[in-house]
Amino acid sequence: MIPVYKPYLTKENLRFAHEALDSTWISSKGQYIKQVEHLLSSIHSVGDVNINIALTTNNGTAACHLMARLLHKTKKKIKTIIVPNNVYVAAINAFLFDKNFKLKPVECDQKTWNYNLSKLYELLNNSNVETTALLVVHNLGNIVNVPKILRDWKGLTILEDNCEGIFGSYESYPSGSLSFASALSFFGNKSITAGEGGAIIAQNHHEGYLYKLRSQGQSDTRFVHDELGYNYRMTNVQAAILYGQLKDKNEILRKKTNILNSYKKQLNIDEVSFQEAEPNTTHSKWMVGIRIDGSSYDDAEEFFKSNYIEVRPMFYPINKHSHLKNLKCHGGYSVAEKLNKECVVLPSYPELQDHEIAHIANCVKQYITKIR
Amino acid sequence: MIPVYKPYLTKENLRFAHEALDSTWISSKGQYIKQVEHLLSSIHSVGDVNINIALTTNNGTAACHLMARLLHKTKKKIKTIIVPNNVYVAAINAFLFDKNFKLKPVECDQKTWNYNLSKLYELLNNSNVETTALLVVHNLGNIVNVPKILRDWKGLTILEDNCEGIFGSYESYPSGSLSFASALSFFGNKSITAGEGGAIIAQNHHEGYLYKLRSQGQSDTRFVHDELGYNYRMTNVQAAILYGQLKDKNEILRKKTNILNSYKKQLNIDEVSFQEAEPNTTHSKWMVGIRIDGSSYDDAEEFFKSNYIEVRPMFYPINKHSHLKNLKCHGGYSVAEKLNKECVVLPSYPELQDHEIAHIANCVKQYITKIR
Repeated sequence: MIPVYKPYLTKENLRFAHEALDSTWISSKGQYIKQVEHLLSSIHSVGDVNINIALTTNNGTAACHLMARLLHKTKKKIKTIIVPNNVYVAAINAFLFDKNFKLKPVECDQKTWNYNLSKLYELLNNSNVETTALLVVHNLGNIVNVPKILRDWKGLTILEDNCEGIFGSYESYPSGSLSFASALSFFGNKSITAGEGGAIIAQNHHEGYLYKLRSQGQSDTRFVHDELGYNYRMTNVQAAILYGQLKDKNEILRKKTNILNSYKKQLNIDEVSFQEAEPNTTHSKWMVGIRIDGSSYDDAEEFFKSNYIEVRPMFYPINKHSHLKNLKCHGGYSVAEKLNKECVVLPSYPELQDHEIAHIANCVKQYITKIR
Repeated sequence: MIPVYKPYLTKENLRFAHEALDSTWISSKGQYIKQVEHLLSSIHSVGDVNINIALTTNNGTAACHLMARLLHKTKKKIKTIIVPNNVYVAAINAFLFDKNFKLKPVECDQKTWNYNLSKLYELLNNSNVETTALLVVHNLGNIVNVPKILRDWKGLTILEDNCEGIFGSYESYPSGSLSFASALSFFGNKSITAGEGGAIIAQNHHEGYLYKLRSQGQSDTRFVHDELGYNYRMTNVQAAILYGQLKDKNEILRKKTNILNSYKKQLNIDEVSFQEAEPNTTHSKWMVGIRIDGSSYDDAEEFFKSNYIEVRPMFYPINKHSHLKNLKCHGGYSVAEKLNKECVVLPSYPELQDHEIAHIANCVKQYITKIR
């Protein structure tokens, strides 16, 4: 079976994790935590942007939750979050944990698989930017042009779930770098991994507050806590795994770029659509998704499985999750439903071989013939 | 400097973690997660007790939060949690995250450093066991006799923060095994560690629900989520560290028992008190705390530091934490304040050497002479 994903782990890039184990710095302190936080700051600091907060967390959900808490703390008027209607549920959940916000979903776009921008702009037109924030998610790595939205909607606060977007860009800036705050994930299936892990990225605000929330709300006095906090800390071993990944990031991105290009070349046929990029954005190459007009996911999955290929679906419309089913969506759910039905996410891991891509592309064509 | 704690990590007990890294199963799946969950079930299943839920989590706070969610889900009438007034804040916070419960703190006891049982019983006498649950915390490893409380208060629901209590016992049962649910921590300073980690232990209820909450609330269909969930998963690498620790648990407990006994022997003087055990309980030996009548913690810490000994304070009265400062405590806070002022937690790690214990005990005596 060709898996849909596996992390790029080599003897060389794992050696830092082995070293961390042997050092016995296996818990929430250690040199690798600081080193990866420094590297993550650097990656996001391009041109005039100076990211001085890159706090690691134990996963991407925790990072999203820290964004929600930071928003509530620093922009008290904001009570409503506009959210996409077709993303991984954790991005949405993070804004529900504390019961501080109301969610307003917006329909997605059949070409980008992200927000339908005209529907989004309609809703923003009827919203007060002082009481409403926008959650941006870069589905599968297709980047939403955040700086354009910020120009079009002066004063709007954007939170960016960049968990699928790392190494993508908008208008020459790294995705995640221009929002109020952004979140990263280093789960096992992400372009770079810590096993489980995440980070919150932000400019200039409240590092002390975030640091505190991450570590049980502890004040400057040990065991005295002055905020309701969490244990959201990454371990030094996880950070050491991530450090090895960051060393290999150019190689990983090169391999993943080749994979996307190779799929595009071999599946340059009318029946297959890839995500379309917005102008002035670059895809992060996280996962390669295709839409096959008229196909049905369960049937497609079965077909690929019988050919020893693991695939995954595009995310479900968020009203399919019981706890979100009553959310009224601006623009409805029909495009999200169509994408969920017709899209297939193909194996996209760095070590995927040319002959495997050829086999997968061939199976896509066979499947199309089968359903015609 | 003699540290207050360091984990017992050896080449031998770390080899499983190295193996997990090399296997590339570094994320939320892998054989070690299941193996440690099986071992944790076994440890807690003694006599007629059959623990069939031992779910690992990414830390003890997450495990406590799962207890709170489980309680809210299955005992909807319970709205009030009675809590100790002198424990690590995370145990308390976990019941505040979802804003489902009201807290009622109770004063502690100068001898056990846990609940003042007569104050607790006074409060329970004025409480309805159908709408009130009790949070038990075994401070530093001194075990509260849960089965006795359960006999005395028929129908009472007890949640047990057993993060400091692992390897302790009440009436021949392992601490954590007789409550509605209990939580463990495997933080770097715990008797056995995963770097960061935890577990929720329970009999017979709702494994599926807890499993779901731990992993983003996902239903049986991948990417469809039917509960507001979290990413509370332990990684296979963390589980592999813990697996090595569990292999060495008898040795660790033996070493820690010797340390406690050695301190008790060398500090068998009027001015020093150790925690007194309740009848029919056995201390977990997590940390050795002493109370020095008339001492003042900051001053003591300074003295020990100048002698190259790291110590830590007993937990602060919970009203010292800003977000808990308005909680009215049954019995007041004066004993908690006294314990926080007069107690010193001494180095207690398994590899602490006899000559180091002798040095520490000698310094305690010098400190007593100094303040007389």
